[in-house]
Amino acid sequence: MRQLSGQDATFIFMEKRATPLHLTSLYIYDPSTAPGKKVTYKQLMAHIESRLGSSKVFTQKLLHVPMDLDYPYWVDDPDFDLEFHVRHIALPAPRDWRQLCILTSRLHSQGLDMSRPPWEMYIIEGLDNIEGIPPGSFATLSKYHHAAIDGASGVEIVSGLHDLSPKPVRHKQQASQADEPPSTVELLKRSGINNVRLPFHLASVLARTRPGFDWLPRRKEPEEERAEAPKRPVPRTPFNQPVSAHRVFTGQMLELADFKTIRQAVTGVTINDVVLATCAGALRRYLLAVDELPEEPLVAGVPINTRTEKDRDLTGNVVSSMSIPLQTHVDDPVQRLEQIRDLTAAEKTTEKAVSARRMTDINHHLPATTLTMASRLISATGLMHRSKPLFNCVITNVPGPQVPLYQCGAELLATWGCGPLLDGVGLIISAHSYNGKMFLCATSCRDIMPDPGLFAECMQASFDELLAALRPRRKGSKARKRR
Amino acid sequence: MRQLSGQDATFIFMEKRATPLHLTSLYIYDPSTAPGKKVTYKQLMAHIESRLGSSKVFTQKLLHVPMDLDYPYWVDDPDFDLEFHVRHIALPAPRDWRQLCILTSRLHSQGLDMSRPPWEMYIIEGLDNIEGIPPGSFATLSKYHHAAIDGASGVEIVSGLHDLSPKPVRHKQQASQADEPPSTVELLKRSGINNVRLPFHLASVLARTRPGFDWLPRRKEPEEERAEAPKRPVPRTPFNQPVSAHRVFTGQMLELADFKTIRQAVTGVTINDVVLATCAGALRRYLLAVDELPEEPLVAGVPINTRTEKDRDLTGNVVSSMSIPLQTHVDDPVQRLEQIRDLTAAEKTTEKAVSARRMTDINHHLPATTLTMASRLISATGLMHRSKPLFNCVITNVPGPQVPLYQCGAELLATWGCGPLLDGVGLIISAHSYNGKMFLCATSCRDIMPDPGLFAECMQASFDELLAALRPRRKGSKARKRR
Repeated sequence: MRQLSGQDATFIFMEKRATPLHLTSLYIYDPSTAPGKKVTYKQLMAHIESRLGSSKVFTQKLLHVPMDLDYPYWVDDPDFDLEFHVRHIALPAPRDWRQLCILTSRLHSQGLDMSRPPWEMYIIEGLDNIEGIPPGSFATLSKYHHAAIDGASGVEIVSGLHDLSPKPVRHKQQASQADEPPSTVELLKRSGINNVRLPFHLASVLARTRPGFDWLPRRKEPEEERAEAPKRPVPRTPFNQPVSAHRVFTGQMLELADFKTIRQAVTGVTINDVVLATCAGALRRYLLAVDELPEEPLVAGVPINTRTEKDRDLTGNVVSSMSIPLQTHVDDPVQRLEQIRDLTAAEKTTEKAVSARRMTDINHHLPATTLTMASRLISATGLMHRSKPLFNCVITNVPGPQVPLYQCGAELLATWGCGPLLDGVGLIISAHSYNGKMFLCATSCRDIMPDPGLFAECMQASFDELLAALRPRRKGSKARKRR
Repeated sequence: MRQLSGQDATFIFMEKRATPLHLTSLYIYDPSTAPGKKVTYKQLMAHIESRLGSSKVFTQKLLHVPMDLDYPYWVDDPDFDLEFHVRHIALPAPRDWRQLCILTSRLHSQGLDMSRPPWEMYIIEGLDNIEGIPPGSFATLSKYHHAAIDGASGVEIVSGLHDLSPKPVRHKQQASQADEPPSTVELLKRSGINNVRLPFHLASVLARTRPGFDWLPRRKEPEEERAEAPKRPVPRTPFNQPVSAHRVFTGQMLELADFKTIRQAVTGVTINDVVLATCAGALRRYLLAVDELPEEPLVAGVPINTRTEKDRDLTGNVVSSMSIPLQTHVDDPVQRLEQIRDLTAAEKTTEKAVSARRMTDINHHLPATTLTMASRLISATGLMHRSKPLFNCVITNVPGPQVPLYQCGAELLATWGCGPLLDGVGLIISAHSYNGKMFLCATSCRDIMPDPGLFAECMQASFDELLAALRPRRKGSKARKRR
């Protein structure tokens, strides 16, 4: 039994129906690498069950202190039931990428059952009609509540469920002895409050039971102390409005080699710069198409994990962020990239005064769940700044493993993620590299982005344009040059 | 805004994680009758949206009085979001009947989100491999919380969503003005309790917040007053144990004409008698196979709706029940049927002293949601009798419409339902006739019935045996005679 930190508890109490605070990851697997070339639901269930010991997140639920007089605790769920958490469905016709995006959006929009360990996994069969994915592939869509997931537990889960070879390794299930849940009296003792004092708290309890009461804890968090006023003017965009309960999701699978080609073509550019420039081009195209491009450049909030190798054993994240103008007012894609390079190079993380660019480099960075950092940043922001946006969108870029991973023998082909939105933070773009590919995806709200397909086209066009401008001319191929 | 009755409120408070109290109906539709020979998710959503006015159940959620000092209220959900309630999935491979039963079992096992109008509908595509169902058919699986559904609202929902012709009728959406949810103060005023008295209730509030506290209201309900001690010895069977959180579901689609053939072959037999005898034969076969058949006959609880045509405008059910020995100790199927006929003929409903058999006849019976009656009976029973079973299983038989129904132009082909189980009431069998077919289905708990396929086989064999024994010999066909 362990108590939630103030920040984690905040993620519980600030959750609203339209803005549930969970992370969703969409993984696509090819079962043809598995023994027998297929993986059944039963096999996956047995596999997941054998790996439950890899993270407490799987089996612990929240225990609230009566009337929320203190932060909740994580306790082992004595009625843990894997079948509640892992569901088996198939992708409806026409079983294509668009339908998978719609299904992902819908599943991501729905909140978790907070009376259980707050996670769900959908095993989605029938991915028979998706370009670049072999027919017969399946997906897992996993949702984890923000309060349960930090960078460390995210890594625990991903590494716990995956192997480095298609031959599944037998994990010895840890004999996890369930903690006895504490009694109410014990909880109240722990919170340092006794029954005599309870009546004085009734006013606030009644206030909380009023439907829709907008209650937010105002404890001062470390993040809050660190928060600074925005240094740069942040324009108003459609992304900085209250968000609805409906999410949209869209994703791209690109070649990491192409990102490297672009990096090599312009001096001093990092992969992160290329990601930012690609997003910048997409945002410019999209906002031009819907006639909403502001004159000033959009500003992206870019979370940075400042943990170094030395801090490996620390749990939790040390998250800092930089806010980078995306130069969306610049038409030329290469000029835009060069300016972004200069801006990120000048930016230092406040936390350790090391170059922020260095932190996003694969060699100086501990892998963490991409979206974890983003959503912590978003949440801290949403808590603090309700009138003026600190940035227009969040862009995360976290390098992943460059070797294939396998679950239950099936090769992981692709990995995307949806983050939580908050009022005023209506767009999050995440980039995640894995095994030679770069996966870009956007999560937004349907009212804010009614046409996610258009945004996906803009993203692809932006990347193609940048690549076309910078790819070395090949002999005999059609000449490409900077436009 | 209306307050829940004592009985309905009981269904809220007695709900436990392993025994959620909702009804699930599984409907299968053939879209080939619809305009364009197909029905899309979008069309279904638009259709359902246009019919939301047909029942308050769709849009009203529970509002709890603070600390549950009084029964909750139904209030319009100001954030009602149809897309939360209606989900779109496909049946996983091999897309056959068994897979649909498994999916149905799993979806039925999961509780509803009680912070919203307590219903969900899954639109299930890809029913391409089910005997007797044209490929391309789809299903809807709907879950409604018991507290929201009585016979009247069940009929409202079914008739609200369906038409009598494939050409959808345009329903004018009622301009439903959402009630303003009452303030906490108003709720407390209504409950006749003021703030000054609140602290005295703290002890019970704290007791309720203790995890897993088994709190049951003990108000005396009309049902309770009417309850009588079992008149007949009820043997112990595997069905009368605590139930797990996992349901199993299995169903049969039989010809109503065959039931009529059997009825005509034995003097004085009703369709209800044939249903009971079929179930009796199935239970005998199943319990013999698992070596658990008791010497005494199993006793079925059979709910009876005693409302007559005169009471049509009364909402709510007037539910009575009869308990009928199923003569499972009798080997000969025709003798078993004859004895059941005599037993049901002798049984009178306590409520109106009319023949119970008459009440189950289509001409003297108002259609109601079959399972509604069953589950009210089960719940009342579960509340009252925890040590000794009042009956071994519940069997309901409610005649449905004998004309085809259509939703969004697609013909309703088949209709089954799952009821809620309670500790000690681990098997419910429902029979429902519709458009020339008889649909039988069983809901049980996986620990109690680990082999639902075997039970389905027993049901089919029992019916085949009865029909073979009583079907008139045809010229040239193989002679059949009573064994």
